Amino acid sequence: MTTTLISGGTVVSATGRSQADVLIDGERIAAVLAPSSTLLGVDLATSVDTVIDATGKYVIPGAIDAHTHMEMPFGGTFASDTFETGTTAAAWGGTTTIVDFVVQYAGEQPLEQFAKWHEKAAGNCAIDYGFHQILSDVQDSSLSAMDELVGEGVSSFKLFMAYKGVFLSDDGQIVKAMQRAADNGAMIMMHAENGSVIDLLVQQAVGRGDTAPYFHGLTRPWQVEEEATHRAIMLADLTGAPLYVVHVSAKQAAEQIMQARDRGQNVFGETCPQYLYLSLEEQLGAPGFEGAKWVCSTPLRSRAEGHQDHMWRALRTNDLQVVSTDHCPFCMKGQKDMGIGDFSKIPNGIGGVEHRLDLLYQGVVTGQITLERWVELCSTTPARMFGLYGTKGVIAPGADADVVVYDPNGHTSIGVGKTHHMNMDYSAYEGFEIDGHVDTVLSRGTVVVDGGTFLGRAGHGRYVRRGLSQYLL
Amino acid sequence: MTTTLISGGTVVSATGRSQADVLIDGERIAAVLAPSSTLLGVDLATSVDTVIDATGKYVIPGAIDAHTHMEMPFGGTFASDTFETGTTAAAWGGTTTIVDFVVQYAGEQPLEQFAKWHEKAAGNCAIDYGFHQILSDVQDSSLSAMDELVGEGVSSFKLFMAYKGVFLSDDGQIVKAMQRAADNGAMIMMHAENGSVIDLLVQQAVGRGDTAPYFHGLTRPWQVEEEATHRAIMLADLTGAPLYVVHVSAKQAAEQIMQARDRGQNVFGETCPQYLYLSLEEQLGAPGFEGAKWVCSTPLRSRAEGHQDHMWRALRTNDLQVVSTDHCPFCMKGQKDMGIGDFSKIPNGIGGVEHRLDLLYQGVVTGQITLERWVELCSTTPARMFGLYGTKGVIAPGADADVVVYDPNGHTSIGVGKTHHMNMDYSAYEGFEIDGHVDTVLSRGTVVVDGGTFLGRAGHGRYVRRGLSQYLL
Amino acid sequence: MTTTLISGGTVVSATGRSQADVLIDGERIAAVLAPSSTLLGVDLATSVDTVIDATGKYVIPGAIDAHTHMEMPFGGTFASDTFETGTTAAAWGGTTTIVDFVVQYAGEQPLEQFAKWHEKAAGNCAIDYGFHQILSDVQDSSLSAMDELVGEGVSSFKLFMAYKGVFLSDDGQIVKAMQRAADNGAMIMMHAENGSVIDLLVQQAVGRGDTAPYFHGLTRPWQVEEEATHRAIMLADLTGAPLYVVHVSAKQAAEQIMQARDRGQNVFGETCPQYLYLSLEEQLGAPGFEGAKWVCSTPLRSRAEGHQDHMWRALRTNDLQVVSTDHCPFCMKGQKDMGIGDFSKIPNGIGGVEHRLDLLYQGVVTGQITLERWVELCSTTPARMFGLYGTKGVIAPGADADVVVYDPNGHTSIGVGKTHHMNMDYSAYEGFEIDGHVDTVLSRGTVVVDGGTFLGRAGHGRYVRRGLSQYLL
Amino acid sequence: MTTTLISGGTVVSATGRSQADVLIDGERIAAVLAPSSTLLGVDLATSVDTVIDATGKYVIPGAIDAHTHMEMPFGGTFASDTFETGTTAAAWGGTTTIVDFVVQYAGEQPLEQFAKWHEKAAGNCAIDYGFHQILSDVQDSSLSAMDELVGEGVSSFKLFMAYKGVFLSDDGQIVKAMQRAADNGAMIMMHAENGSVIDLLVQQAVGRGDTAPYFHGLTRPWQVEEEATHRAIMLADLTGAPLYVVHVSAKQAAEQIMQARDRGQNVFGETCPQYLYLSLEEQLGAPGFEGAKWVCSTPLRSRAEGHQDHMWRALRTNDLQVVSTDHCPFCMKGQKDMGIGDFSKIPNGIGGVEHRLDLLYQGVVTGQITLERWVELCSTTPARMFGLYGTKGVIAPGADADVVVYDPNGHTSIGVGKTHHMNMDYSAYEGFEIDGHVDTVLSRGTVVVDGGTFLGRAGHGRYVRRGLSQYLL
Repeated sequence: MTTTLISGGTVVSATGRSQADVLIDGERIAAVLAPSSTLLGVDLATSVDTVIDATGKYVIPGAIDAHTHMEMPFGGTFASDTFETGTTAAAWGGTTTIVDFVVQYAGEQPLEQFAKWHEKAAGNCAIDYGFHQILSDVQDSSLSAMDELVGEGVSSFKLFMAYKGVFLSDDGQIVKAMQRAADNGAMIMMHAENGSVIDLLVQQAVGRGDTAPYFHGLTRPWQVEEEATHRAIMLADLTGAPLYVVHVSAKQAAEQIMQARDRGQNVFGETCPQYLYLSLEEQLGAPGFEGAKWVCSTPLRSRAEGHQDHMWRALRTNDLQVVSTDHCPFCMKGQKDMGIGDFSKIPNGIGGVEHRLDLLYQGVVTGQITLERWVELCSTTPARMFGLYGTKGVIAPGADADVVVYDPNGHTSIGVGKTHHMNMDYSAYEGFEIDGHVDTVLSRGTVVVDGGTFLGRAGHGRYVRRGLSQYLL
Repeated sequence: MTTTLISGGTVVSATGRSQADVLIDGERIAAVLAPSSTLLGVDLATSVDTVIDATGKYVIPGAIDAHTHMEMPFGGTFASDTFETGTTAAAWGGTTTIVDFVVQYAGEQPLEQFAKWHEKAAGNCAIDYGFHQILSDVQDSSLSAMDELVGEGVSSFKLFMAYKGVFLSDDGQIVKAMQRAADNGAMIMMHAENGSVIDLLVQQAVGRGDTAPYFHGLTRPWQVEEEATHRAIMLADLTGAPLYVVHVSAKQAAEQIMQARDRGQNVFGETCPQYLYLSLEEQLGAPGFEGAKWVCSTPLRSRAEGHQDHMWRALRTNDLQVVSTDHCPFCMKGQKDMGIGDFSKIPNGIGGVEHRLDLLYQGVVTGQITLERWVELCSTTPARMFGLYGTKGVIAPGADADVVVYDPNGHTSIGVGKTHHMNMDYSAYEGFEIDGHVDTVLSRGTVVVDGGTFLGRAGHGRYVRRGLSQYLL
Repeated sequence: MTTTLISGGTVVSATGRSQADVLIDGERIAAVLAPSSTLLGVDLATSVDTVIDATGKYVIPGAIDAHTHMEMPFGGTFASDTFETGTTAAAWGGTTTIVDFVVQYAGEQPLEQFAKWHEKAAGNCAIDYGFHQILSDVQDSSLSAMDELVGEGVSSFKLFMAYKGVFLSDDGQIVKAMQRAADNGAMIMMHAENGSVIDLLVQQAVGRGDTAPYFHGLTRPWQVEEEATHRAIMLADLTGAPLYVVHVSAKQAAEQIMQARDRGQNVFGETCPQYLYLSLEEQLGAPGFEGAKWVCSTPLRSRAEGHQDHMWRALRTNDLQVVSTDHCPFCMKGQKDMGIGDFSKIPNGIGGVEHRLDLLYQGVVTGQITLERWVELCSTTPARMFGLYGTKGVIAPGADADVVVYDPNGHTSIGVGKTHHMNMDYSAYEGFEIDGHVDTVLSRGTVVVDGGTFLGRAGHGRYVRRGLSQYLL
Repeated sequence: MTTTLISGGTVVSATGRSQADVLIDGERIAAVLAPSSTLLGVDLATSVDTVIDATGKYVIPGAIDAHTHMEMPFGGTFASDTFETGTTAAAWGGTTTIVDFVVQYAGEQPLEQFAKWHEKAAGNCAIDYGFHQILSDVQDSSLSAMDELVGEGVSSFKLFMAYKGVFLSDDGQIVKAMQRAADNGAMIMMHAENGSVIDLLVQQAVGRGDTAPYFHGLTRPWQVEEEATHRAIMLADLTGAPLYVVHVSAKQAAEQIMQARDRGQNVFGETCPQYLYLSLEEQLGAPGFEGAKWVCSTPLRSRAEGHQDHMWRALRTNDLQVVSTDHCPFCMKGQKDMGIGDFSKIPNGIGGVEHRLDLLYQGVVTGQITLERWVELCSTTPARMFGLYGTKGVIAPGADADVVVYDPNGHTSIGVGKTHHMNMDYSAYEGFEIDGHVDTVLSRGTVVVDGGTFLGRAGHGRYVRRGLSQYLL
């Protein structure tokens, strides 16, 4: 097996940093060592096959994006990134594992869908991947499928409180799934928006002729997110299931999560770069149909109301634990433009799988989070949260050699013609400048990105069976 | 230099656990390696001087007790453990670093006292030690001393809101010290009890003839702790200083800390094993003068009111971040008995430096905290909180080889005739049984405890200069 | 017109008490006067037709029960009190106005139902009555009916978050009704329980063979009330409608109301005597089928969890504003017994319209509330809340002469063979003893109860058109 | 005795309004009657001595200002209004009772001071007056004086947490006074600012040369008010004493009061018109020395931080219960100007006793509070809070005939040359316009103000013995 030494760098973990070399043997990390060491008489640098010089750079566990939707069928079209294009873009950005969502629409069978998603992904991924399972109508067969899927390494199930007739589960169905999760140890993930109210507000807005993308935001006000978040928390409390609220964007929803955690409940929250950097006024309210680029749900929130600042604070205080992308890209041409004249027809989603690590690093530069918290939010906690820790999420012997060498003196310009490798005809972060750079990316010991060159391949990535959450109180 | 391999164990960190060997070269950890590895052709086990078999055991960073008072002068006597006896007992219990308090009483000079404490400790400690500085009257000279002390590795200053004429600083003095700390980056530690009210209640109780040890608890009700905690938080908010509240025992005080943290303030809290296990009713209320054993401040709280359960919950939810002992032992004979007939004359303090790691491990056994949280509370967070991380608090290359091999299948009985090595004529935890055992303790690469044998020596321990807190938001 | 002087008593209002005489001229109060007054030369006592001696007694505005269900159709039967028997019992207990609910089941037309209820009540009531309107499926026709009903003196509309297919409105329907209420000034009343979850829990309990009345309580845990209460509050916040939550029994629900009020939202809450005095363990958990007597929704709550104490506290601190009875009586024989072997078949409801004033007065005796708060909770606030103040709810010139003379030195024993005049074959408060007594009751100037004698008649009571709420911030 | 009929007006109480006439017989209200009534054959209008036509106007109980400092000695000078000028100005503004503060500085005897204040006021007041007692150092003699003073009708005692050496009590002294109050039923009033911190900040500011009036505000930041408020609440909780926090200006302090009340504690709060209308930026920050006009403690708060809006909200939600003026006037010339070059020498105080009723009525006009809440805040609750209700604070038979006829169609311009009758050479509210007007003011049956004419006289006002608070839970 090939041996590699990443030498001279600063290894950063969730709790601290140290000068250390990382020795890789094949696909795994063999040792973490005091720098430049002659270990028991052996000169490591000359003994290994390859040396990667990380002097002056950060060596961190490969980032994990716990929320992606590659080639997801939605609203009559498909998310524009395939598993191949999407995972390749992810690798470019330092993400070495994604956890994608198997979609089960109402009427479909979870296990059949799980099999289909395996087919879609197998042989096509540039990096490792796991699956969450979406459950859209919780039938008795879904409950037994939950147990089976846990055995297959799918230890988390996403439910929806919105999208009636498509994804929505009613509260009784949610409780049924939660009861089962409390039993088999799985995590319940929740899309927390009150769909019944949204459907009414959308119908009223369209009826009034308020059809621009901006009204996507106005018809999903913070109250519908706060309400659904609280409801999910109470149902979780009733059943004892752990709960992970996806894509939190409203500060009031974050406060509900904070309060539940203060009471000692196993409730967790995720936000996304779009909720940290973008806003209702600036992006969704862009002139004409431009705002369609940023139509996603939950929606971008008002900067005047302070949601973005609150999200950063919630990341600092661990009210929210994870930053994912909710990567669900659609092109403006041929996809987003289906909603010209009716915002409710715009496919919901923003692509960003490539830029999360960079965008969050900029939060380190601006003092929003510490360097350690950056690693924790992007890699360590996602791994712990979703049963990957040990294999992923940490630089430690025995772990998969998923490693990123990040250069704090580098620079990254984001935009369609710049670092952009996602299959999108626009960038949600066009023009963003990052004071850092993903230099080298290793996936299970293989260098897949080296400076400006992609060295990976579709099919390198393997399915990862996940265990139960390692983050519970 | 001597090389040691701790092999076959499960290395536990604050974020997870893995099977790994730890290679020690001299005083430091040289590498953490995949188990049983033949690293680049070298058979480690046969190449090192010593192999410690940790199969089936936990390998953790040496515990750090951030709150001890060795041979502290108080109320006309001295805490009964010297630096030698106290650090030896600590080592027995898996603690490899203490941070002790330099005492400056009102009228004394901080820097002179710092020099005296160096003299007391030098050559007498079995394990490494650092110092916090107590400031009892914040004069202008104290402010400049603070800067100087930070340079000497004393990055935390303890103030008192009680003990008028002895330790107490008034609120203006507290603000002055906090202003300086906000400036030089130091941590303000606070004894948060309203001394003015306590003095009145004590005087009234003694005046009424309520002189038994139990009244020590009744004259320091939760309101005086909650109030002072809130006050300290507000003064810290006003000045921007980070704040660490010592020995939190009242749930209402813990809630004040939680709320401050929820607002994003750098406020931290410590509790102690006595507040997790012992109570006002059972211990302090023991018949006759027996309760004097547990006279300490803050006092033991009512179990009926649920303070103990709340402390465990606060540890789980990270409302409190550290468990220290506030080790301040006094013998019943000749010391505690000074307060027969007047509880206010009983020296305040409980000894426990030896048992913290065991007592907290029992919380893992009973499901109160996770194994990782145990390591975080006893070692990693104390190290980060007080600027020791990297050198201490973590199993990583470059760190001091302070390591504990803990046996989850072992057993420990606590009591004067059992594991007790502290210079006390009683044990505060007499009769406690622990389902685990500290097997082997290394301090900077030297085995100081091996099974039932103490192999260390006074003078092995060295002064550790601490940096600024690495735990701030 | 007849003139009456109530002399020598203590007139109690929501804000205080004073020695005063009340002069009634026909149906209205003509004056409130300094006691024993010779007014401008006229000796009142000899000039009036009747003098009622209230020496040593309280003279208070007639009580208003804002929540009754006379002869309500439910689950294949009818509430056992007709408008005649129910209002007669109410009068016996010092209640001089009820606000009853017009029932519109899904599929029915609100205005048609309103007409039917008028027919039921007309000529049959012993005291005055108003109507709230239940809306069970909010169609466009319901929205225009709301406006029309406000014109008819029905200024409050009750929605249900439970009882699917019978009463339940989904959240979109609720928002539609709230939008209209925000527009026309009406109050939204809410039965706040999550019906979807309850239906599941009931089905699971019955499926397990847990069919005793006690399981009625266990299948409606506090979480489903808290959740629905929070949801209703958020929807009200979204729309700007004032919200009145009926029959609050869980302390967590009361806390949600408190928090909304703390934020300045027009949210109000009602509790009932059963939630102040009775419990899950003692009553609902009575042996055999006995517990069926107390099957009502929301259910009686656990005394061990402290809900009853919390309800009293919430009444003191004005977190809850009104005490009503939710009078909905069913006999054990022929009605409640429909649920032998299946608690879900037991008609939901407790009768108590007769005893509210007495039961709350006992709270004055035991120090739970002040005398003034008693008047406020039972009469003044219900009047203000539901647009009756001025006509009802106050002893003031121009108001209807609905007056109760209450004797604090009297005594009342509650039970089927005692003060009980409701058409029920049991009493929910059997054996309760009250240290006070309703001596005399006047309805619009007519003495309808005098000591132990009923002097009223069916048909005396008139429909009262209500205005908009007079209690909004 | 003279009889007066106020006819045709709308009588407004704390709970509602009604068309009613008020009959006054001598000094007291004899009856409240249905309008234009021929009562039992007597034509009232022709039978009384005087008829006041209140058609189209509000008839309300005379306002009570529970916080004034007439001719108070402070900082080497005296508040510029004597009891004569101050009470005359009060009468002009519809205030018919003041509760002034007897000052006991440290070292003085409470009872002696009480006697002196009686001398000062006797024969000089245009309206009725009561006293609170300031206690500045709580000696044993002060405790027994408290009991005696309660017997003299002084049922409330004000303590200070600021002004060291002048007014300040330490926390132990506060507890002693509270213990006594818990015993004898008195109310503890608190000036809640942390004086120790303020003294430091003032010294630092002056030392830096920050001497303008604006720095008065910056050296009393919200934290010192919030902190002291919380502390007072905890000490009250410890002792069981009821607590009334005077002149609340910081929203965070109001929130502490709200939370205490939510827990069911007898804690109350007062704010003043200056905290509703004026701000740190606009008034205190006026150019040059102009800001000195508004130097008072607690200070005016930042409008940008939203304190003023929060005070209005707190009044609506009953988090605060009373609006007083804290009338403590000083002239710019010869008094305020003592602080040119050093803001800490500016006498602390604002005069406003004349304008409270008008300024609060403007809040009715702008929709901040309801008409009923206006009466409650200015008259009814002050009366209940301080044991005056029944005699004062209500339009009811037997009450003192303190009545204001307020014209909602009138207009009032505030300013030195306008409605201003206070002995001040400036107006704190110069230029304010009020959409309403105090038309007629009666004090104990005597018309003291009639339109634009003052008909009262010094010496008409009498001392009022107050009972215990009638507002406790």
